[in-house]
Amino acid sequence: MNASASQPFDAVAIIGCGLIGTSIGLAIRERRAAVTVIGIDLPGGTSTQTALQRGAIDRVATLDAISSCDLIILATPVRQILALLPALRPHLKPGAIVTDVGSTKEQIVKSAIYALPAGTYFVGSHPMAGSEKRGPDAARSDLFANALCLICSQPDYKQGVAYSLAADTYTAHEYAAVQRVESFWQSLGMRTLRVLPDLHDRWVAAVSHLPHAAATALMLSAASDPHALVAAANGLIDTTRIAGGDAEMWTDILLTNGPAIADQISQLQKHLETLKTAIETGDEPALRAHLESAKRARDQWLAQRTKSP
Amino acid sequence: MNASASQPFDAVAIIGCGLIGTSIGLAIRERRAAVTVIGIDLPGGTSTQTALQRGAIDRVATLDAISSCDLIILATPVRQILALLPALRPHLKPGAIVTDVGSTKEQIVKSAIYALPAGTYFVGSHPMAGSEKRGPDAARSDLFANALCLICSQPDYKQGVAYSLAADTYTAHEYAAVQRVESFWQSLGMRTLRVLPDLHDRWVAAVSHLPHAAATALMLSAASDPHALVAAANGLIDTTRIAGGDAEMWTDILLTNGPAIADQISQLQKHLETLKTAIETGDEPALRAHLESAKRARDQWLAQRTKSP
Repeated sequence: MNASASQPFDAVAIIGCGLIGTSIGLAIRERRAAVTVIGIDLPGGTSTQTALQRGAIDRVATLDAISSCDLIILATPVRQILALLPALRPHLKPGAIVTDVGSTKEQIVKSAIYALPAGTYFVGSHPMAGSEKRGPDAARSDLFANALCLICSQPDYKQGVAYSLAADTYTAHEYAAVQRVESFWQSLGMRTLRVLPDLHDRWVAAVSHLPHAAATALMLSAASDPHALVAAANGLIDTTRIAGGDAEMWTDILLTNGPAIADQISQLQKHLETLKTAIETGDEPALRAHLESAKRARDQWLAQRTKSP
Repeated sequence: MNASASQPFDAVAIIGCGLIGTSIGLAIRERRAAVTVIGIDLPGGTSTQTALQRGAIDRVATLDAISSCDLIILATPVRQILALLPALRPHLKPGAIVTDVGSTKEQIVKSAIYALPAGTYFVGSHPMAGSEKRGPDAARSDLFANALCLICSQPDYKQGVAYSLAADTYTAHEYAAVQRVESFWQSLGMRTLRVLPDLHDRWVAAVSHLPHAAATALMLSAASDPHALVAAANGLIDTTRIAGGDAEMWTDILLTNGPAIADQISQLQKHLETLKTAIETGDEPALRAHLESAKRARDQWLAQRTKSP
């Protein structure tokens, strides 16, 4: 691989043209981040036709067409990514880089290390952008603009060595692959940040998967008396918005990050128990302290977030 | 009281000129829903000055000035409303109508029945509109437009009779007072719905207070590792938005609706436990069923909501 880190990819394949895959295609075309983009459906899928009509891809192809591609993006639910990895093996050209958009990373990165042939490179990606809508019709070329993409690779995993993300733990080719994938997402308007796969999974358990579980449980609780919903306003709409997301995709995400999410749910249950006790016993100082502490944590986070690049 | 149900009020007093009180003033002035509006601060308060500068009230007054008013609106936190009720007694003119904007209703309506003199009328209101911002600077004249105002009165409570909201359980004067308060909120652009105070409190426990407790607990859980917050996106922002609300006001609300909220928190904890078990045991059908059931409940609610007047 002689390409420099910032050189755009020539031919990109997007496998899975749903909301994310089609949005990637639209963003690539709008920002001229690659010369050619092909779209590949999973067996039985037809969303590439919509992606083609929307101008997100140049043509529809079958899996063997990845043999001409420099970058292959797996844009399917997590467990389909895991199932796809071995199927890529016979078709990848030397030097090809494979990435994905899965919301959990440890299982994917570990599997990819073993599934892909020598001389090809896997760099895990998690573009932190989405919508509760799904499918290529909901795709937008600006879905990724100004959002963060977490980059997870694991170069030393094959050797069983404790992994690290420092440049000197990679071969030069592996490091170049990481940099090219970072440049690719940056060319779609994203910020990138490298993080170890297991830490990534703990982070997203706290800030993405737990909110999904909470929104789901909250919606089920609030809807237990349907009459009560006439009194519902923006508070319930906002707190449960993500519970309107695709159940199939979220089943995948939650099942591939089980232990970290279970820990987070236990923590949430404890905070709820503390609040309930304060409310039941009329412990005003304890209740106020909890509400203030949550408000402060949120205010500080948002202030920090505005300042970050 | 000879005024017809739809006749606008002549002189209105707003006690407490924070976000809600000042927004009421702005809406009254914009829609000419009363002839005069006076603003009254709680002891030590100064927000009427801002309300005056913003044109939300005609003048600043002290509590005795309510003796010239037809409608007195208590726009303070719930426990201040409870404390204010006896203080109104010496100043109310015959036929005066008192309402409030408190987020819990059973304690307020019960207290008002006993606190106010004969020949005056209390009609509880809960305009379902707000913001996580507070104070008169955040007030908006359109805060109430198209939102729902729940109306809670309890005419038979004094007699210890099971209460009802049918017209024939009210005296003619009491019923006229309910209708005038309804017309008032309608003149600010709101829809109104009558509901018994205890049922109101159970409804809002489910759709407003529980989301607040959940958002608070969720923010505390997600922020337990501050590093994780770099990976946070709109999901966490939306699910925790209401946890940015005023801690003092929410302490009040939660403490005046304790039993109903504690029940709701228990229900939420059970749903979380079910989700956690499904995730831990890898029970895919159970997990998918829960996610689908929450999504369906939310989709149906929102579809219904769009159709309602």
